[in-house]
Amino acid sequence: MKLIIINGPNLNLLGKREPEIYGKNTFEEFFAYLQEKYPHITLHYFQSNSEGALIDKLHEVGFTYDGIIMNAGAYTHTSIAIADAIAGIKTGVIEVHISNVHAREAFRHKSYMAAKCVGSIAGLGLTGYELAIDYFLQ
Amino acid sequence: MKLIIINGPNLNLLGKREPEIYGKNTFEEFFAYLQEKYPHITLHYFQSNSEGALIDKLHEVGFTYDGIIMNAGAYTHTSIAIADAIAGIKTGVIEVHISNVHAREAFRHKSYMAAKCVGSIAGLGLTGYELAIDYFLQ
Amino acid sequence: MKLIIINGPNLNLLGKREPEIYGKNTFEEFFAYLQEKYPHITLHYFQSNSEGALIDKLHEVGFTYDGIIMNAGAYTHTSIAIADAIAGIKTGVIEVHISNVHAREAFRHKSYMAAKCVGSIAGLGLTGYELAIDYFLQ
Amino acid sequence: MKLIIINGPNLNLLGKREPEIYGKNTFEEFFAYLQEKYPHITLHYFQSNSEGALIDKLHEVGFTYDGIIMNAGAYTHTSIAIADAIAGIKTGVIEVHISNVHAREAFRHKSYMAAKCVGSIAGLGLTGYELAIDYFLQ
Amino acid sequence: MKLIIINGPNLNLLGKREPEIYGKNTFEEFFAYLQEKYPHITLHYFQSNSEGALIDKLHEVGFTYDGIIMNAGAYTHTSIAIADAIAGIKTGVIEVHISNVHAREAFRHKSYMAAKCVGSIAGLGLTGYELAIDYFLQ
Amino acid sequence: MKLIIINGPNLNLLGKREPEIYGKNTFEEFFAYLQEKYPHITLHYFQSNSEGALIDKLHEVGFTYDGIIMNAGAYTHTSIAIADAIAGIKTGVIEVHISNVHAREAFRHKSYMAAKCVGSIAGLGLTGYELAIDYFLQ
Amino acid sequence: MKLIIINGPNLNLLGKREPEIYGKNTFEEFFAYLQEKYPHITLHYFQSNSEGALIDKLHEVGFTYDGIIMNAGAYTHTSIAIADAIAGIKTGVIEVHISNVHAREAFRHKSYMAAKCVGSIAGLGLTGYELAIDYFLQ
Amino acid sequence: MKLIIINGPNLNLLGKREPEIYGKNTFEEFFAYLQEKYPHITLHYFQSNSEGALIDKLHEVGFTYDGIIMNAGAYTHTSIAIADAIAGIKTGVIEVHISNVHAREAFRHKSYMAAKCVGSIAGLGLTGYELAIDYFLQ
Amino acid sequence: MKLIIINGPNLNLLGKREPEIYGKNTFEEFFAYLQEKYPHITLHYFQSNSEGALIDKLHEVGFTYDGIIMNAGAYTHTSIAIADAIAGIKTGVIEVHISNVHAREAFRHKSYMAAKCVGSIAGLGLTGYELAIDYFLQ
Amino acid sequence: MKLIIINGPNLNLLGKREPEIYGKNTFEEFFAYLQEKYPHITLHYFQSNSEGALIDKLHEVGFTYDGIIMNAGAYTHTSIAIADAIAGIKTGVIEVHISNVHAREAFRHKSYMAAKCVGSIAGLGLTGYELAIDYFLQ
Amino acid sequence: MKLIIINGPNLNLLGKREPEIYGKNTFEEFFAYLQEKYPHITLHYFQSNSEGALIDKLHEVGFTYDGIIMNAGAYTHTSIAIADAIAGIKTGVIEVHISNVHAREAFRHKSYMAAKCVGSIAGLGLTGYELAIDYFLQ
Amino acid sequence: MKLIIINGPNLNLLGKREPEIYGKNTFEEFFAYLQEKYPHITLHYFQSNSEGALIDKLHEVGFTYDGIIMNAGAYTHTSIAIADAIAGIKTGVIEVHISNVHAREAFRHKSYMAAKCVGSIAGLGLTGYELAIDYFLQ
Repeated sequence: MKLIIINGPNLNLLGKREPEIYGKNTFEEFFAYLQEKYPHITLHYFQSNSEGALIDKLHEVGFTYDGIIMNAGAYTHTSIAIADAIAGIKTGVIEVHISNVHAREAFRHKSYMAAKCVGSIAGLGLTGYELAIDYFLQ
Repeated sequence: MKLIIINGPNLNLLGKREPEIYGKNTFEEFFAYLQEKYPHITLHYFQSNSEGALIDKLHEVGFTYDGIIMNAGAYTHTSIAIADAIAGIKTGVIEVHISNVHAREAFRHKSYMAAKCVGSIAGLGLTGYELAIDYFLQ
Repeated sequence: MKLIIINGPNLNLLGKREPEIYGKNTFEEFFAYLQEKYPHITLHYFQSNSEGALIDKLHEVGFTYDGIIMNAGAYTHTSIAIADAIAGIKTGVIEVHISNVHAREAFRHKSYMAAKCVGSIAGLGLTGYELAIDYFLQ
Repeated sequence: MKLIIINGPNLNLLGKREPEIYGKNTFEEFFAYLQEKYPHITLHYFQSNSEGALIDKLHEVGFTYDGIIMNAGAYTHTSIAIADAIAGIKTGVIEVHISNVHAREAFRHKSYMAAKCVGSIAGLGLTGYELAIDYFLQ
Repeated sequence: MKLIIINGPNLNLLGKREPEIYGKNTFEEFFAYLQEKYPHITLHYFQSNSEGALIDKLHEVGFTYDGIIMNAGAYTHTSIAIADAIAGIKTGVIEVHISNVHAREAFRHKSYMAAKCVGSIAGLGLTGYELAIDYFLQ
Repeated sequence: MKLIIINGPNLNLLGKREPEIYGKNTFEEFFAYLQEKYPHITLHYFQSNSEGALIDKLHEVGFTYDGIIMNAGAYTHTSIAIADAIAGIKTGVIEVHISNVHAREAFRHKSYMAAKCVGSIAGLGLTGYELAIDYFLQ
Repeated sequence: MKLIIINGPNLNLLGKREPEIYGKNTFEEFFAYLQEKYPHITLHYFQSNSEGALIDKLHEVGFTYDGIIMNAGAYTHTSIAIADAIAGIKTGVIEVHISNVHAREAFRHKSYMAAKCVGSIAGLGLTGYELAIDYFLQ
Repeated sequence: MKLIIINGPNLNLLGKREPEIYGKNTFEEFFAYLQEKYPHITLHYFQSNSEGALIDKLHEVGFTYDGIIMNAGAYTHTSIAIADAIAGIKTGVIEVHISNVHAREAFRHKSYMAAKCVGSIAGLGLTGYELAIDYFLQ
Repeated sequence: MKLIIINGPNLNLLGKREPEIYGKNTFEEFFAYLQEKYPHITLHYFQSNSEGALIDKLHEVGFTYDGIIMNAGAYTHTSIAIADAIAGIKTGVIEVHISNVHAREAFRHKSYMAAKCVGSIAGLGLTGYELAIDYFLQ
Repeated sequence: MKLIIINGPNLNLLGKREPEIYGKNTFEEFFAYLQEKYPHITLHYFQSNSEGALIDKLHEVGFTYDGIIMNAGAYTHTSIAIADAIAGIKTGVIEVHISNVHAREAFRHKSYMAAKCVGSIAGLGLTGYELAIDYFLQ
Repeated sequence: MKLIIINGPNLNLLGKREPEIYGKNTFEEFFAYLQEKYPHITLHYFQSNSEGALIDKLHEVGFTYDGIIMNAGAYTHTSIAIADAIAGIKTGVIEVHISNVHAREAFRHKSYMAAKCVGSIAGLGLTGYELAIDYFLQ
Repeated sequence: MKLIIINGPNLNLLGKREPEIYGKNTFEEFFAYLQEKYPHITLHYFQSNSEGALIDKLHEVGFTYDGIIMNAGAYTHTSIAIADAIAGIKTGVIEVHISNVHAREAFRHKSYMAAKCVGSIAGLGLTGYELAIDYFLQ
C-alpha cells in the first residue's frame, strides 16, 4: 500500500508559528511519528506553497498510489484547478483540515475540492491525518 | 469511557431504502458490530426523526458522557436549535455524515452545527463512525 | 387502493381560525365527505404539528400505500428532513396547498419537498385534495 | 361552460421531440381525447411560441370564458407581461405544467404568473389538464 | 415635428380593465384628446403586445422621427432587446409609466431601457404622456 | 387575567449551562419569583425543545388566554410553522429574548415570528419577561 | 396655489461645478426664470446639504402647500428618513432628477422615496422641474 | 437617577400625522405624563431630525446619565454613525420602536444600532418607553 | 450539407446603426459573401426581432438541417424559451456573438442558450459566422 | 500651500473614549503637534458629526485649498452625498482611517467616497494624517 | 506570423484521463497535427499548471507574437492576475475551451479573462484551437 | 532596520506597459531611487508572478525583517493563502496599491490580505511605497 500526504500553503510554518498555541513540533516530526506507527505501508509526504506544484504532484502520484491525504490549506477555498486535478486522477483523495474550518471565517466554509474527494475530516487536529490513513487501510 | 452515537432523521431507513445501493444492513446491525469491536467502552445508540427529541437526548447525555458522535441528517443544514444544544452541553461532539454532503445539493453544504462541534467526518461511509470513536479513544 | 392524506402544522386550526373566512368546517368534516365520495378505496388521514411525527408517518406508510397526499404546511418551506423522507420511501407523494402559496410571502415560494414529489397542486382550496385522489385513481 | 387551454412555447413539439420518452402522441391528439371526455362543455385550444400572441389570446377570451388552463412553458419564468395580462382579465386562470418544474433547473422554480392565477398543477403529466378542467366543472 | 407614442403589453386593456378604477376611457380616446391639444405636430400612436413588433416599430421610426414616447409596460423590466433597439436608433426616447412603478412589486423597480432613454416620467397618470410631448416641444 | 410563558429549545439548560455566566438559578426558580410578584394573575409556564409541542401549546392556550410571552429560542430564526401558529390564534404574543440577539451571529437577526407578534423585547435579561407581563397588565 | 422646490445635497454647486458641462447658470438663476414663467403661483425654493434640514422643511410645508418638487440628490438613494417624512406629510411630492440616474452607478438606481411620492421625472434636465410644476397646475 | 429619551426623525409628527390612527396626542404630552408618573427621577427629552444633532446629544449625555432610551426612527436602519456613537459612550442605551418594525418593509428589519445597545423593545406602542424606564429603575 | 444562420433582435440594424463604427455593410451583403465563399453547401439566412418567430424557425429547420448558427442577440440573456427550443430539436446549434459580450454589461455575461448549444464563438466579429460554418464542415 | 483635515462623526471622542486604549490625547492636541511639525504650510482642522456640515465644508474649501485630508468616520460607508461632494469639487481628497477598517465589521469594508478620492490610507493610526500631508507636499 | 498556444492546469492530462471519453491522443499529438496543417506559420506550445508560469509566458511572448490562443483551464474562473496580464500585453488573446463550460457547474460560467481577450471559442473540442488559428490568419 | 518591498503579478511590466501612461521607468529604477533616498536602512526588493513564490518569500523574511511593504497586485483580491501567510509571520505588512483600486472594477474592492495587514495605502502612485517606508521609520 502506497499513500501520500500532500500539504498546501503555510502548513510548513507548523512549529514555527505561535508555538505556544500550535505546539513546537514541525509537520516533519509528526510525519516521522506516522512512519513509525505505520511501518508496513509506503508513506510519502509533500508540501508546497505553490498551487501549480500541488497539481503537478497530484498528477504524478494520482495514477499509481492507493490513496492521497490532502490538506490544501487556503487553496481549498479558492482553487478550482486543484479540484479539477483531483477529479482527473484515479487515486481517491481525502481532504483533511487540522482546525475546524467551519468555526472560522465564512470564506473558509466553502471547499471546491470537497465534491471531488472521497470524503473529508476537519477539526480533529493532526489526528485527522491518522484517521485518513486508517480509512485507506480498511 | 462512555460514548453515544446519535442519528437524526431518516437514518432509520438504512437497510430498507434502496438496499441494492445502501446495502441490506440496518444501522442496528452495524451498531452490534461496533459493540463487538469496542468491547471495553460503553457505547450507546439513539435515533430519532424529531428535532426536539434529539435536543432532549443531547441535554441528557451532554454533561456526563465522554463523547458524542452525531449524524444529524437533514437537521444539520436547518437546525440552529441543535447547534445551540451542542454549544450548551459539556461533552464534545463529532459530526459524521455517511455520504459526501459536499458533492450533493448546495443546501447540504451548510452546517449550522459544524462550528459548535469538535470536528467533522464526511463521505467515508459507516467507517466514519469508527474513526470518530477512534478519535475519542486517543 | 390505499391512500393517505398527511397534513402538517396548523392545519388542525381549520374551522376554528377565522371561520368567517376559512369556513366553519373542520378538516375532519371534509375528510368524512371524501370517504363518502370515494367508498371503494381505503383512505386514511393523519395530522401533526411535529416534523418528526410527520416523518415517522411517511416511513410507516411509504412502502405499502399506493399514494400519499401531503400538505406539509409551513414545513414545506423549511424542512429538508421531510423532503429526504419522501425521497427515501417508495410510495409517490403529491404536494397539496389549499391557498396559492405563490401569491403570499416570498419565503413560501420555495418548497424543499416539491422536487421529491410526483407533482403539486396549489391554490385550488380543499378541491386540491380531491384532484390528487383522482390522479392516483387514474 | 366555455373553457380554453392555452399552451406556450415548444409545447407544439410534443410527439415530435424524443417520442420514446414523451410518447408519440401530439397535443392535438390529447385534445381530441379531452373533447370526447367532456362532450358537454365548449373546449378550445390555442398554442403559440410568441409571448405577444399569448397575451392577445388572453385578452380575447379573458372577459367571456369561464376558465383558462394555461401552460405558458418557459414564459412562466420570464414573462411579467403574461402575468399582467392574467391580472388584467376577468376569467380565472389555472397554471399547468406537465413536468415537475421544481425538480428541474433553479430558474424554473420561479413563476411570475403563479401569483396572478387561481392556482397551479405541476408534475402530473397531461392528467394535469384534466384535473384543471374538473376544477372548473365543480 | 413628428412624435410617436409607443405602448407595450396590456395597455390596450385601458378602459376595459377595472373601469371603476382606471376610468372608462380607452387610450385611443386619450390619444384623440392629445391630437386636438397639439394640432401643429404630427403625432402617431402604436400599441402591441409583442416584444418583436415593438422593436420593429422602433427601428421603423427611430431614424426619422423627432421623439418617441414609450411605455413598454412589463417589457420595461425584462427586455434587453428593446433597450438595445433604443440604443441602436437615433431618435431620443422618453420612458413613461402611468402608475408609480416604484410603489409596486420589486421586479418593477428595475428598467433595462431607462439607461438608454433620454429620461423617464412615472406615476403621473396619463398626464405623463403630455409632459413628455411638452419636453420634446421645448 | 391569564398569561402563559412559553420557552423554546435549550432554555431548560438555564442554571446548568455555564452557571458562572448565566447564574445558578433555573428558569423554574425565576418563575416562582414571578408568581410571587404577580399574585393576582394566573401565570403558567411551559417549555419544550420540540417545535411541534410548542405549536400544540400555542393552539391550546391561544383562544382563551389574555396574553402569551414567548421565547422561542433558536426556532425564532427558523420556524415558519410557529409564526403561522401565532398568526392563527387569537391571543396576542410578545416575543422575548434574554440576550441581545442582534449582537450575536447574523442568522439570529432574522425572526419569522416577529411580524406576527404584538411586539418584542430583547437583551434585557430575565427582566424582559417581567416587562412583557407589565405590558399585558396595562 | 403654493408650490416649493426642495433641492438636496450638492445641488448648490450648479454653475460652479464643471461649468463647461453643466452650464454657467446657478439654480438661483433658473429659479428666477421659473418665477417669471409662473407669475400667478407662489413658488418657493429651499436647498440644504443636511438630511435633517430637508426633513424639517418637508414637515414645515407639508401640511399647507399644494405641491412639493423634490430633488433629494444622493439622499434619494440612502435616506429612509426623508421617505418617511414624505409619507408622513399631506402634500404630494414629485421626485425630480436632472440627470438620468438609471444610466449612472447601480447604487443610484434605488430610490427609497420614490414609493412614497406621487411620481418621478428623471433625465430631462432642468426642464424636469417645469414639467413637475405643470403637473401640479393641471 | 438621570435618564433621557432621544427621538429621531419624524417622531415630532406624532399627533399631527393621521391623528385618527396615531392619536391626537403629541409626544410632548406623553412626556408630561411620564414626568408625572416618575416624579423621583430626572427625565429629559430630546428630538431631532438631524443625524448629527442626535450624535451630538449622545456625546453630551453619554458619560454622565444613567440611561438613554432611544428611538432613532429611520436612522436605526441606515446610520452606522449613531451606532458608533452608542458604542463610544459609557451610558447604556435601550432601543425603542413604537410600531412593530419587523412587520413592516424589509429594510426596517435591520438595525445598525441594536448590536451596540443593551437591548430593544419594539411594537408595544408608547408603553415601550415606560418599560424601558422601568428597566433602568430595576 | 444544409446550414442556416439565424439572427435575433436588432441585428437587422447592421449597416444602418453607427456605420462609422460597425461599417456600412448590411448583414445581407455579408451573407452574399458567405454564399460565394461556400458554393457547395446550402446556406440559408433568417432574421427576426420576435422571440416567437425565432422559435418557430428553430422548430422548422431543427429536424432536417445539418447545423444552425444562431446569434440570438439580446434574447441570449433573457429567453429560456429559445434555450428550450434548442434543447428540443435535433440539429446542433452554435451560438455566435459579433462583439465580446463578456466585455460589456454584466447582464450580457449570462446565456440561457449556451448550455443547450454545441458551443459558442464570441468577439470575433463577422468572422465568427465563418468559423462556425467551418466547424460544421469538418 | 493650504491644507485642511476634515474629521467626521465620533472622532471628537478621541481622548475621551476608552483612553487606556486610544490614548489620553485629543485630536486637537495631535493637530497642535502637526502645526508645529509643518510650520510652513497653512493647516486647518474641521470636525462635525453632521453629514450636511461636512458637505458644506467640502464645498467651502474645495475650490481654493491645495489638498483635503478626510476621515469621514462612519459616513465613509453610508454617504453617497459626501462622495458626490468630493467628486464635485476641484481639490483632491485623501481618505484616512485611523484603524484598519478592513479588519472590522463587513459593512466597514465598503467606501462610497474611495472611488472619488485621490487615494486612501488606513490602519496606520494618527500617522496616516502625517503621511497624507507628506503626499501633498511632494 | 508567430502564434502560441498556451494551456493551463490539467490540460496535460489529455490522453491519460478517461481515454475512452476524451480519446487516447495527447495534446502534444494534436499539436504535431497542427504544425503539419499550418506549415507556413511559427506555432509554439506551452503548458503549465502554475498560474505564475502562465503569466511569465504571457509577458514573454505578449509584445512580439502575432496572436495567443489560451485555454487557461480552471484559472479562467479564478485568476484576475492572468486577466491583468492579458490586459497588460500587446498581443491579442483568444480564449479557447474544449468543453462547453456553460453546460457545466455555475462557477465555470464566469471568466475573468474573457473581458480582456479579443474573443472566445468554447465547446467545439480541439477544433476550437484550429478556428482560433484561422481567425489570426485572416 | 531591514525592510523589503514585495511586488506581485504584472508589476514587472512597469515601464513596458503603455509607457505614455504609466511612464517609462521600471520599478527597478524606482527602487534604485529609494535606496539612494534611504541610505541608512537595508532595503530589499522581490517580485514574482507566482502566488507560491510570494508566500515562500513572506515566510523567509517574515520572522527577521522589521517591515514588509507588499503590493500583491491581483492576488490581493483572490488569495487567501497570501493572507494566511501574512497572518502566520511576525513582521508587520503594509499593503500598497499604486492605483486607486476602489475606483476600478468591483472585484478589486475586496482584499483578503487587508485584514491581516497593519494597514494599507492606495492610489498614491509610487509615492505610496515611500510613505510605507516612512511609517516603518517612525
